[in-house]
Amino acid sequence: MKLAMIGLGKMGGNMVRRLRRGGIEVVGYNRSPEIVQTLHSEEGLIPASSLADAVVKLDGIRVIWLMLPSGEPTEEAIKELIPLLSDGDIIVDGGNSNYHDSVRRGALLEDQHIGFMDAGTSGGVWGLDNGYCLMVGGTDHVAQVLKPVLQVLAPAADRGWAHVGPVGAGHFSKMIHNGIEYGMMQAFAEGFALLKGKEEFAIDVAQVAELWRHSSVVRSWLLDLTAEGLLEDQTLTKVAPYVADSGEGRWTVIEAVDQGVAAPVLSLALQMRFSSQDSEGYSHRLLSMMRNAFGGHAMKNTGDKQ
Amino acid sequence: MKLAMIGLGKMGGNMVRRLRRGGIEVVGYNRSPEIVQTLHSEEGLIPASSLADAVVKLDGIRVIWLMLPSGEPTEEAIKELIPLLSDGDIIVDGGNSNYHDSVRRGALLEDQHIGFMDAGTSGGVWGLDNGYCLMVGGTDHVAQVLKPVLQVLAPAADRGWAHVGPVGAGHFSKMIHNGIEYGMMQAFAEGFALLKGKEEFAIDVAQVAELWRHSSVVRSWLLDLTAEGLLEDQTLTKVAPYVADSGEGRWTVIEAVDQGVAAPVLSLALQMRFSSQDSEGYSHRLLSMMRNAFGGHAMKNTGDKQ
Repeated sequence: MKLAMIGLGKMGGNMVRRLRRGGIEVVGYNRSPEIVQTLHSEEGLIPASSLADAVVKLDGIRVIWLMLPSGEPTEEAIKELIPLLSDGDIIVDGGNSNYHDSVRRGALLEDQHIGFMDAGTSGGVWGLDNGYCLMVGGTDHVAQVLKPVLQVLAPAADRGWAHVGPVGAGHFSKMIHNGIEYGMMQAFAEGFALLKGKEEFAIDVAQVAELWRHSSVVRSWLLDLTAEGLLEDQTLTKVAPYVADSGEGRWTVIEAVDQGVAAPVLSLALQMRFSSQDSEGYSHRLLSMMRNAFGGHAMKNTGDKQ
Repeated sequence: MKLAMIGLGKMGGNMVRRLRRGGIEVVGYNRSPEIVQTLHSEEGLIPASSLADAVVKLDGIRVIWLMLPSGEPTEEAIKELIPLLSDGDIIVDGGNSNYHDSVRRGALLEDQHIGFMDAGTSGGVWGLDNGYCLMVGGTDHVAQVLKPVLQVLAPAADRGWAHVGPVGAGHFSKMIHNGIEYGMMQAFAEGFALLKGKEEFAIDVAQVAELWRHSSVVRSWLLDLTAEGLLEDQTLTKVAPYVADSGEGRWTVIEAVDQGVAAPVLSLALQMRFSSQDSEGYSHRLLSMMRNAFGGHAMKNTGDKQ
């Protein structure tokens, strides 16, 4: 088995390492060439200097696995690949693309007789050692061709990967996975804030997090990571109270609206991230102004001491 | 080490089994005597016919561990125990008491020179085999006396139990644990509903749940149980869409209000349970009536086909 990996960042680079250690031949291309050389010398990656060069270095059914930022970079790469590929070749999108894009791209490539697989990939920086959790969408044929690759990337040949449905279903499942993640994270965050907030008990929240890892109902990988982080510094004073969000949390909420299915906690978890990002606090200023207006309630002014 | 276990239901009975298998002598009392006899013949429990009889069958520092429903039953047992105990004896409340009650009872018992420990206990029916996760509040002295017991009940002597603070801190931590549990459960529930709701992908949600158990970010014990349940029947048509709630979810939300600390997702997870319990749907009827009133929008009448 041989494939080309396009995009050798944090995810793509480690996936190459895992594939190579699993005995898969990998051709690799990255916009900045340093990592290509590193993976060549460390892992035996076959270096490519362009998409076209990567395609040329494959044979048989050519499989191109994209690990690029979603949106334009992925779109551009697919457009560039189409004229370089032949009937029956396969493009895999392992990035975090919106599933609507994947459905569209799958149809576009089908018209060109090129196979497509959307591979939702979880596992982050831990995937190299633990394996990646892979939700893939596509035809049975394409899933069959990719099976040896999925079996190496996954935690084990028989688990942690699955062909979950047609093109789009892979990225769709990954999107919902991330939506759930937002909700779980917010639940833990609120709970630990309440533990910390009960000052008279002076609870060591790192101790409680560690304790809950064993036989409690909330034990989870997110709790494992939280316990580790709190053990290092439970004041969190060095961490700014700003939580970024990437596409998938937003797409999950839009999906709930599209389906007309209630997902209030996933929606609210996203809104709380927006609130954390809002340094202006316009809505809070407005509320304070209104309280003052109708009830004459004292209003803090900008710059007042807490 | 020897203690008396009062209340031999699902939790108390299994805790007796685990204690006995760990070499701890246990005197047991239960309102209905059958389980006392069963545990006597199967596990060598020393049977007691009343609280007074249980106390008499202890020696040294007498430790009485209550596993009773919170509220009145626990309150009554403590009242009944006070005149039966001597200076330095210890009452442990391992039930799901409100932590405010535990603080009050701790002070009351301290006045009587009786020690008190509140032991928040997680692990449910799985605790017998896996061990119980124990969060205990009390003085250092009381925690020291109970240490050999906690080490047997916990998953291992060195983990899954901790002395988290003064009296009250144990039940407080357990309350927050359950609040987090509500949020996590709701996040999973909403995510799986969206997976199921995407009919065109015909996703096998049992397969996805199983898949996520391996190397995904949302892997957790709750997901393990969910995967098992969905594997059996993913239609869930036999399960009524009614979710009960016990005290701890409500107390967590009240705690957030008392502290003035935002816990919107934990609060909303609780509200969604209330919504599931509401067969009357008065607020939904009212909304439908209002839409009709101001906009003339068609209104479904009771008994209309979906």
